[in-house]
Amino acid sequence: MATESVSTALPLRTAKQSEAHPLAPLNAGEIRNAVLLIKAQWPANVDLRFKCVTLHEPAKAETVPFIEAEFHGYNLPRVDRRAFLNYYLRNTNKFHEAVVNLSTQTVEKNVRLGPNLHGPGDGEEILAIERVALGDEGVQAEIAKLKLPEGAHVVVDPWIYGSDGVNDDERLWQAFLYMRDPENSAEADSNHYALPLTISPVISSTSMKVVRIDHLPTGKDNTISGPKPYQRRPGNEYISELQQLRTDLKPLHVVQPEGASFAVTNQGTSHVVEWQKWSFRVGFNYREGMVLYDVRYEGRNLFYRLSLSDMNIPYADPRHPFHKKSAFDLGDAGAGVMANDLKLGCDCLGSIHYLSAVLADDKGEPMNMPNVVCIHEQDGGIGWKHTNYRTGRAAVVRNRELVLQSIITVANYEYIMAFMFNQAGELAYEVRATGILSTQPIDDGLEVPWGTVVHPGVLATHHQHIFSLRVDPMIDGYHNRLVYDEALPMPRSDFNPHGTGYYTQETVLEKSGGYDLDFERNRTFKIQNVDVRNAVNGKPVAYKIHAPPFQKILSDTESFNHKRAEFSDSNIYAVRYRDGELYAGGQYTNQSRGGTGVRSWANRKENIKDEDLVVFVQFGINHIPRIEDFPVMPCEVIKVALKPVNFFERNPAIDVPPSSQEFNKSTLLSEQHQQGATEGVIDGSGQVCCTTPGPSSKL
Amino acid sequence: MATESVSTALPLRTAKQSEAHPLAPLNAGEIRNAVLLIKAQWPANVDLRFKCVTLHEPAKAETVPFIEAEFHGYNLPRVDRRAFLNYYLRNTNKFHEAVVNLSTQTVEKNVRLGPNLHGPGDGEEILAIERVALGDEGVQAEIAKLKLPEGAHVVVDPWIYGSDGVNDDERLWQAFLYMRDPENSAEADSNHYALPLTISPVISSTSMKVVRIDHLPTGKDNTISGPKPYQRRPGNEYISELQQLRTDLKPLHVVQPEGASFAVTNQGTSHVVEWQKWSFRVGFNYREGMVLYDVRYEGRNLFYRLSLSDMNIPYADPRHPFHKKSAFDLGDAGAGVMANDLKLGCDCLGSIHYLSAVLADDKGEPMNMPNVVCIHEQDGGIGWKHTNYRTGRAAVVRNRELVLQSIITVANYEYIMAFMFNQAGELAYEVRATGILSTQPIDDGLEVPWGTVVHPGVLATHHQHIFSLRVDPMIDGYHNRLVYDEALPMPRSDFNPHGTGYYTQETVLEKSGGYDLDFERNRTFKIQNVDVRNAVNGKPVAYKIHAPPFQKILSDTESFNHKRAEFSDSNIYAVRYRDGELYAGGQYTNQSRGGTGVRSWANRKENIKDEDLVVFVQFGINHIPRIEDFPVMPCEVIKVALKPVNFFERNPAIDVPPSSQEFNKSTLLSEQHQQGATEGVIDGSGQVCCTTPGPSSKL
Repeated sequence: MATESVSTALPLRTAKQSEAHPLAPLNAGEIRNAVLLIKAQWPANVDLRFKCVTLHEPAKAETVPFIEAEFHGYNLPRVDRRAFLNYYLRNTNKFHEAVVNLSTQTVEKNVRLGPNLHGPGDGEEILAIERVALGDEGVQAEIAKLKLPEGAHVVVDPWIYGSDGVNDDERLWQAFLYMRDPENSAEADSNHYALPLTISPVISSTSMKVVRIDHLPTGKDNTISGPKPYQRRPGNEYISELQQLRTDLKPLHVVQPEGASFAVTNQGTSHVVEWQKWSFRVGFNYREGMVLYDVRYEGRNLFYRLSLSDMNIPYADPRHPFHKKSAFDLGDAGAGVMANDLKLGCDCLGSIHYLSAVLADDKGEPMNMPNVVCIHEQDGGIGWKHTNYRTGRAAVVRNRELVLQSIITVANYEYIMAFMFNQAGELAYEVRATGILSTQPIDDGLEVPWGTVVHPGVLATHHQHIFSLRVDPMIDGYHNRLVYDEALPMPRSDFNPHGTGYYTQETVLEKSGGYDLDFERNRTFKIQNVDVRNAVNGKPVAYKIHAPPFQKILSDTESFNHKRAEFSDSNIYAVRYRDGELYAGGQYTNQSRGGTGVRSWANRKENIKDEDLVVFVQFGINHIPRIEDFPVMPCEVIKVALKPVNFFERNPAIDVPPSSQEFNKSTLLSEQHQQGATEGVIDGSGQVCCTTPGPSSKL
Repeated sequence: MATESVSTALPLRTAKQSEAHPLAPLNAGEIRNAVLLIKAQWPANVDLRFKCVTLHEPAKAETVPFIEAEFHGYNLPRVDRRAFLNYYLRNTNKFHEAVVNLSTQTVEKNVRLGPNLHGPGDGEEILAIERVALGDEGVQAEIAKLKLPEGAHVVVDPWIYGSDGVNDDERLWQAFLYMRDPENSAEADSNHYALPLTISPVISSTSMKVVRIDHLPTGKDNTISGPKPYQRRPGNEYISELQQLRTDLKPLHVVQPEGASFAVTNQGTSHVVEWQKWSFRVGFNYREGMVLYDVRYEGRNLFYRLSLSDMNIPYADPRHPFHKKSAFDLGDAGAGVMANDLKLGCDCLGSIHYLSAVLADDKGEPMNMPNVVCIHEQDGGIGWKHTNYRTGRAAVVRNRELVLQSIITVANYEYIMAFMFNQAGELAYEVRATGILSTQPIDDGLEVPWGTVVHPGVLATHHQHIFSLRVDPMIDGYHNRLVYDEALPMPRSDFNPHGTGYYTQETVLEKSGGYDLDFERNRTFKIQNVDVRNAVNGKPVAYKIHAPPFQKILSDTESFNHKRAEFSDSNIYAVRYRDGELYAGGQYTNQSRGGTGVRSWANRKENIKDEDLVVFVQFGINHIPRIEDFPVMPCEVIKVALKPVNFFERNPAIDVPPSSQEFNKSTLLSEQHQQGATEGVIDGSGQVCCTTPGPSSKL
């Protein structure tokens, strides 16, 4: 992969120990320092365009002793701080990867990467591509043929070019054109996705010139009917001042009069969160956004590292150029760099703690990213309940949850991602898909089986959202195994004479590979530590993976879509841990060719039993658009959960204080409410309010 | 089925029109009236034991004209009020079914039911069975052999007997015995499930005598090692005063300073709820608990009737007598009669409206059931969001939900059921399984593959929870069809040269039957009305069914479990509507033999296309117990959703007012919070607070 090495280590090691935690994202000074060290490798007149300047996480062999020493209060070993950088020589295709040791002020790696390895898009670049497309005389001539109404405002959505192996070695952008509602042309937030145009210029990111102008098929086949004069169509706006808003929604406030139950300790760019026996460290980088490290419960090791690894969104329309729409929103752009600046009272409800981050812009300058993560508690309904029907006494607790939420905007789409913890030792990762469908023009009166007409003349093509959650476990230690349980019917026998018996059977996964769910067998994957046994029942401690089913990638196995999205064809990938293997679709997904992601790693068929293993959990949606998904789609929610199995000795939420009116202060609305005499009665422990009448009046 | 008719219609029809709505549950006066009419059929010295006195819903052919006239403000047709009753001649096996016309004061049906049809258990009966078991000399003799410690308190859990075809024509109870922790014997809420005993008496509900005493196998096979002297074991309590409660949880209040957004209109025992364009009528009966009728959105017909139809819980242990553990919690007992009296501040959070109900006790007397349903709003996170990256303007609304919750206790287990509505025209039914595992004794040091040791000497056997939600649709009218969509890869061709294309294909279900999900094909069931087309895209209006996968019943097809739980083997059952076919497991599930439920109805292979059809949606959990599920299990949540597909012309939540700090009043916790200058800025419309900095500082 290295084709040109320009790296030279500085001869003298500067013994300058950084104060930052080994897992802390780079701070502004470190970003500047790393960039300066790289710039010093080049003549002063060489202009570098940075794609990323981010923490190069230390080797696990270094980090584990550090975090264990930290946890136990021992002397901390020294761990060097390093930065990882990608950059181009500006306006060239010369793409570089570099590692800088900030502790020693050494450039440890600085190589030009080979062909077909391309950097992600960035915000400045996208805006520049928009300008190039609109400024191009050829594009303007094509637009003129559309005879748009006076004052029409054309909007450009640049798309990652994708890969089909046809003249796509160069780094390119495919631009889709839209217009604002002509009756609303001055409104910068007019929903242009309601008015797609048929022209699609292709721009080289090296020359920053239009290299081709595609015309989009709008019929039921591949035919290009060419630019046709515009016919008036309605708009379909989403901004509030253009709606007749409903007026009957009453406010709902979440109030925590004594403050929140969590504590956040800021250590520079790193944040330690403690809540209800959980503790973990929060990082944030340009690509994955939120990363959780060193997740523990009551000090017991659970997860070394948790993050969204990548996502892939292949589209169903097989016609050029739509067949190349297959975005990797993390690899092609970045969940960190696209994170929303979350606003109090808008994106979260209740008592909110915000985390901000520092990333680098295209010039290598630190860039503040305010409020990219919000942390708050929410009520998750009843946690557990039991009523003894003989005494009528109800024991009930609520399920308080801690939420870390981050929201990203990827051109038309939005994703709301959240890590959620509860008091029963359970952890979930939730994704809400929302935002606007990527649309294309369609002839009037036509229906096609690869999309849905969501507005006159507007087709929303089917597409899959396939997510990969990277789970690096340390269940009571760093050597774990992956197993699955299945529930199977017992054959009839003297032991099972009535055909009712069933049993569970465990299968241990010996080798790295891709593994699938099977609901017909209730197949349930668990990450186990066989060296630590439950004190009561002797079973290995474990966490199970609750993942919803999803349809695997529909592109065929020979397609570039399939080859590139290496995580898209199995519910579970399990691999032996190696430093640097973080991204399920490979390090460089933009116009990638495959062969560098989790399927390739799994194919090494390494032993994963009782080793340091990593599990990638895939989940997703096959989004068959409804008209209700336009102009902005209601959130579609998917969730993966990690739950203890024989890890504790009993329900870990058994010690949550009972739910009581004294604590919860609810409000009674019903006029003829018949709350019994026991309402509000506090017993000797000062806690219990929930007794009911005896069994004679109810079962 | 009728073996003895004792019914005679009164000769004179009393033209007394009841004031009650045709779908209103019986009120106290109607219950008394119905019971008196039945008692009048018998000599005064015959003691009747009532199993149910409930609304006999009018024929749909009568009800539909009524509710449509009601909706349109026309004159209301007259619909007679009728009661449905089941009763025994007390202390006999003479089980009766009766229908009484309250409007005409006529007994329209009153028949003795044939063999193998048995009434459900009830609260008084269960307590009586407990007393019979403990008072029996033979049982006392067996208990004496256990040499329990001084002051030991034995607790009886009566179980529905189940069916295996072996000497089970008589109506019987199987009682499982437990003891309170001997160190805590005076505590009536000691968790006896931690100390199961090996003796299991069988009681006849006719003679109310012990007819047999079973001894439970406790090893790895069928061997009965007989009563063995008690050895000291620890308890495992759940009540709060016996826990070391965590002390670091801060209060969280949900406050609605202007009240709730919903309105409840009480019409006697019936309640009309209106909220955010939704309207529906709430009923409540002894068997299903909550029932929703006439569910509309903006006045458009959606669902005629929605309820949980039944649930089945077959256990995995094939050994006698455990193989008969296969409860139908609705059919064998009743979700209404077991509903908890919900307490303010304990079971719901926020501003709560409670509904109460009236049922009948075993003497036919009205029985108040206070606070069996709570109604409240909750915040469901973000509803939809989009940020225009060019302007930085974020449009975001929250997802307010309306929840109707009811909780039932079925001996050891609890189920929390909720109908949930949102502002995007979506409706969900959520079940949370909690409560205490039904346990049995196991020898020390043993592991078995059909259960999990959750406490020393205590086995929690695997079991399935299989639920059936009955959906009686009226999507823009009463003639609907059931279809499914599948997403399929396109073959390679000139049209699909890169192997990336895929398409959807719709299959119309012509005949009643059982149908399954197929996630490999993204199979999605929709209820359509082809006579009503979407004005924009011409597609039939529809609601789709989002149901999670579950493992079908594991008992083999020849088993009584499989024959009885007629809903347990298909994700979806679809049948042509017939009056009275409400319960997927049949009308009488207690010791049933099968042949009377939804599988049998579906096997009529009636046309369901563009007819009045009913859909039963099955979902469930195969509960492989974890030790974390003891002594009370953390809620396991499952949800079925019904969502519009091309029913509206755009996102129906597009008119929800934007999420703003002015409205939501959140609290800022972070000290160094960098909320931008736009924080709290209200634009001309007085609504928008959520602008963000332009794209130069972030993508």
